[in-house]
Amino acid sequence: MGEKDHSDKTLASDGGLTYVPLSSIATVREATADPIARAELLADVCRLNTLYMIMQAGSGHIGSSFSSTDLITWLWTEELNDANSGAPGADTYFSSKGHDAPALYALLIALGKIEFDRLHQLRRLGGLPGHPDVESTPFIATNTGSLGMGVSKAYGMARAHRFTGRGGRIVLMTGDGELQEGQIWESLQPAANERLSDIIAIVDHNKLQSDAAVSAVSDLGPIEEKFRAFGWAVRRIDGHDFAAIRDAFADFAAIVDRPKVLIADTIKGRGVSFMEGLACGDQTYHFHAGAPSLKDYLAAVGELTARINERLAHAGAPALVTAAAPLPVRVAPAKPEKLVLAYGDELLQMARTRPDIVVLDGDLLSDCGIEAFKQELPERFIECGIAEQHMVSAAGGMALNGILPVVHSFACFLSTRANEHIYNNATERTKIIYTATLAGVLPGGPGHSHQSVRDISAIGSVPGLTAIEPCSEREARLAIRWAVETNSASTYLRFVNVPLDLPYTLPSSYRLEIGRGVTLREGGDVALVGYGPLLNANAWHAAEVLAARGVSAAVVNLPWLNRIDEDWVADRFSRFAAVVTLDNHYVALGQGVMVAAALARAGVHARVTSIGLTDVPACGANVEVLAHHGLDAESIADTVLSCIHAKSFTG
Amino acid sequence: MGEKDHSDKTLASDGGLTYVPLSSIATVREATADPIARAELLADVCRLNTLYMIMQAGSGHIGSSFSSTDLITWLWTEELNDANSGAPGADTYFSSKGHDAPALYALLIALGKIEFDRLHQLRRLGGLPGHPDVESTPFIATNTGSLGMGVSKAYGMARAHRFTGRGGRIVLMTGDGELQEGQIWESLQPAANERLSDIIAIVDHNKLQSDAAVSAVSDLGPIEEKFRAFGWAVRRIDGHDFAAIRDAFADFAAIVDRPKVLIADTIKGRGVSFMEGLACGDQTYHFHAGAPSLKDYLAAVGELTARINERLAHAGAPALVTAAAPLPVRVAPAKPEKLVLAYGDELLQMARTRPDIVVLDGDLLSDCGIEAFKQELPERFIECGIAEQHMVSAAGGMALNGILPVVHSFACFLSTRANEHIYNNATERTKIIYTATLAGVLPGGPGHSHQSVRDISAIGSVPGLTAIEPCSEREARLAIRWAVETNSASTYLRFVNVPLDLPYTLPSSYRLEIGRGVTLREGGDVALVGYGPLLNANAWHAAEVLAARGVSAAVVNLPWLNRIDEDWVADRFSRFAAVVTLDNHYVALGQGVMVAAALARAGVHARVTSIGLTDVPACGANVEVLAHHGLDAESIADTVLSCIHAKSFTG
Repeated sequence: MGEKDHSDKTLASDGGLTYVPLSSIATVREATADPIARAELLADVCRLNTLYMIMQAGSGHIGSSFSSTDLITWLWTEELNDANSGAPGADTYFSSKGHDAPALYALLIALGKIEFDRLHQLRRLGGLPGHPDVESTPFIATNTGSLGMGVSKAYGMARAHRFTGRGGRIVLMTGDGELQEGQIWESLQPAANERLSDIIAIVDHNKLQSDAAVSAVSDLGPIEEKFRAFGWAVRRIDGHDFAAIRDAFADFAAIVDRPKVLIADTIKGRGVSFMEGLACGDQTYHFHAGAPSLKDYLAAVGELTARINERLAHAGAPALVTAAAPLPVRVAPAKPEKLVLAYGDELLQMARTRPDIVVLDGDLLSDCGIEAFKQELPERFIECGIAEQHMVSAAGGMALNGILPVVHSFACFLSTRANEHIYNNATERTKIIYTATLAGVLPGGPGHSHQSVRDISAIGSVPGLTAIEPCSEREARLAIRWAVETNSASTYLRFVNVPLDLPYTLPSSYRLEIGRGVTLREGGDVALVGYGPLLNANAWHAAEVLAARGVSAAVVNLPWLNRIDEDWVADRFSRFAAVVTLDNHYVALGQGVMVAAALARAGVHARVTSIGLTDVPACGANVEVLAHHGLDAESIADTVLSCIHAKSFTG
Repeated sequence: MGEKDHSDKTLASDGGLTYVPLSSIATVREATADPIARAELLADVCRLNTLYMIMQAGSGHIGSSFSSTDLITWLWTEELNDANSGAPGADTYFSSKGHDAPALYALLIALGKIEFDRLHQLRRLGGLPGHPDVESTPFIATNTGSLGMGVSKAYGMARAHRFTGRGGRIVLMTGDGELQEGQIWESLQPAANERLSDIIAIVDHNKLQSDAAVSAVSDLGPIEEKFRAFGWAVRRIDGHDFAAIRDAFADFAAIVDRPKVLIADTIKGRGVSFMEGLACGDQTYHFHAGAPSLKDYLAAVGELTARINERLAHAGAPALVTAAAPLPVRVAPAKPEKLVLAYGDELLQMARTRPDIVVLDGDLLSDCGIEAFKQELPERFIECGIAEQHMVSAAGGMALNGILPVVHSFACFLSTRANEHIYNNATERTKIIYTATLAGVLPGGPGHSHQSVRDISAIGSVPGLTAIEPCSEREARLAIRWAVETNSASTYLRFVNVPLDLPYTLPSSYRLEIGRGVTLREGGDVALVGYGPLLNANAWHAAEVLAARGVSAAVVNLPWLNRIDEDWVADRFSRFAAVVTLDNHYVALGQGVMVAAALARAGVHARVTSIGLTDVPACGANVEVLAHHGLDAESIADTVLSCIHAKSFTG
């Protein structure tokens, strides 16, 4: 699930990007009549276009896309019947892991099922989302991106097809790391009990997950035996052997009394020699997420093109004609603050003298700022894998027995997948720190499965759990120190991962006081109140825009996401005619609603307007997403102006 | 997990209750030197006291308590070393299923580890909670009640013991229906990978869960093979054979390279002939939850006492001396409204002409009002078992394929266990109805694992998901009809299960309008705004109290939990000097905060106070719990008075 975001970084530009246009794809598909040779060619063409899309986007999962490319190429060209057309009897295909979406897009574009121009628009607004989305993309069967839901969804589809009489097979692809999710095993037995033989799951068994080798993160044990014990028919093949794929599906056709699983041994990054990750133990695989360097990109293009041309020559066909596109220029922040790294460093400093601190991770080591911790204190680092429920309950068991667990994952997964488990721990009155990263709408590229804009709501009412979002490296250090040293109960630390230049600094005397914030910029007409680097930076820039229009706006940082001191609210805001709350979150049940309610309870009669999300977050480049949701400086300034100029109220 | 609540019902009283006092227990324990004969005697004494506790409480899980009684009796008297003392090397025991708590309490009382007087206080405030709670009860190792967390917690404990050097085994009991939860399988492999041989899981394999036989609900398949495939050592025994329990643990002692599971074949309700449920297929077992009838109780006491006395006589010991207690008198509501039944009836009516409606259930059939649906339309009823994540994702797959799924579970589990899954479905813009019952602080008996006071917060910001809590049978019918026929998106229906007499009726012209409520009682000084039968009834009674003190209070029912029409708020509340919001939920991120924010945004300058929970809900009789949390009529009236008499505001 890892998400390296390079979309705002500059790439040194001394070469362009290469893609295979539709006309060339047609030529390649006609180069040979042999289905296997044809699939080999098409798969590599799709790899070229997958790489192109990821370079255009600045992020995307190469390794997982490449390991599954051969499988999906064969399925969609030779095996599936009218896939995802919705017609009676048509087969359904989807990827449960979801982050191999670029490969599927490249294939669907090659097959003319997605319009070709969207090849240039991966992770762009109106383009192709970072993870599959039924609403915006044709031939996508279901939304995925959070792991483990695929078999359950297939179960629902198969049951629905029984009711409607539609029929057709449902083929889904899971990752192997994904098998760490309990929901997979929760869903296997019901499918077997119902004898849903229309379901075929494929495990893209590439042996590597986000942080390291699956065997090092959380070994799967004997997966064939496991599936058999849950009542599934099992076949195991080389997932890059087209004949084996063909034969396995032929084999499956004869099994009509149970669901089937194809364990496909694959190679992560398959198709480009230096991207192919084999056994790498505890080491991190370098092409899991994020665009490659230009050098690596060009080398990969060279290798793929050479192989395609060799095969074309062998088939007596002309060489591949590719098209070029300029390398996108990205503006990097000049001196970005990296809150998560600052957090991790401060945690490590405290852990050196606090032997009770133990770090738990859900396969998102680097995105959570704890690589240095693992390196220095490996004996106090527990890698739980993609198993958030287990991780949080395990932390509960540890906290009851003298340990201070610090639990890490992306905010979107930690707050929702383990939601009841966080609550259960809270009822035990133990002390646990939950560190939730990748919070908010940015990065905009991964899409709604990863944009955590619901976590304040999801965990905000857990009793005794104080939620904080720091707005700078300094506040990040203060926050983890407060959580470890000052707070006697549990803390939820919410972090934006996008590196940003910050126009403000916290006063040197600043310290954390529960429910109270700090004025980052003075102003007299209106107060903008929010949290975190994204909101505060954009509020600051909005204040600049407003100043130019004669409006004096204060910017107030309130890092406490679910604790509002009403006395402080009364004191700080009663002199403003208008207060605008900002949420990097849904407006419904974010911090803003709590601030607005506190104003009402404190008797502050300012005009109140709330800015934040009201619908599923858009996928796109960061600037696109911010503008789309009215969270960029210009939009915030506009909203402030309409709040100020609104007619007077009824009250 | 089923919760039949009889705590407010009258029991015909022509006999008293019987319990075994501590002095008699001591006598029984000394009757024989043979450990097995001693354990047999003590187990039956505990059964007698378990029944007594459940009769006193009016609810509790007999079947699950009795199936595990022999196991825990042997463990705590013969096998475990200084259990749950926390001392170095001491063993740890807990029940992951949790609802067998009465049996454990009876045993801990018999062993002098819990003070005897609490025998009379099951499910009472300050007594013994319905599910285990570390804060209120000695010798409880962890909080359980929501299923599937046990192995993860044991994993955390075992890892913590390694860090601290404490040592000791961790023995946990799971149900067999509990094995349907994916978290069990999520946690097994990590424990095996870490070779945590200190962990011993016992599966109380009594073959029956809340709704029916485990095999009928969601068959487990070959559970021994499953555990082995996940790397655990497995033994299988008759869980009522004390020698077999002893031998299995002796056997386990030699296994030091992996965790161990004891699959104990047991009989639900073991020890009382007519409570013993064997294979009952699709039929509901009658002693899962809820107190038995007085007739059944007296027959059970007779049978247990006779067997105990027979064994005592055989050992040459005097007959059992029991003590008597009066049967508690409970006041039943005169003409209670049963919202869940009305809901289920209305759903069934619509389903007769809407073949797209399919019901999914999470092993809580009768508590969700869908027994009649299952009976009449079994082909459109899908029993998912205790597998909420699977159920909700399956509903997602169905909704994408032409079905209108209506998903049922308790609010506490549905909103939190499947939290991300509800969101994932919402991003697909399909239409699904989530029916969440047992919402709110009542019944107070089951305790905080079951009191759903966080679900508005947990699901309230899901885009496109409208949450409603009906306040009467009529509004329940309107709500499900609105969800099926009017709403084009998804609906979350929240239901209080406690039958209540309602002092109000909805106006005959009333219909549901999004974000708008209805005045149930006119008043001029202060408006009380809330939702559902519990809040509206108690607000009404509070208004009566206030009227007697010269304050005229309006009662406004606002069934929309996450939709507030600001125009309506401005129109309805601007004439009041004070508005009091009511939440059967945490104040933080309940409906009240949204109403208060809407008042601020709408410019209504009334004094605003919010009533609701601020801490983990108490376990107790319903009246105790309401008073404890300030939600009874007297407390509400007091809060209203202090709001009205508060000093003027700063604003």
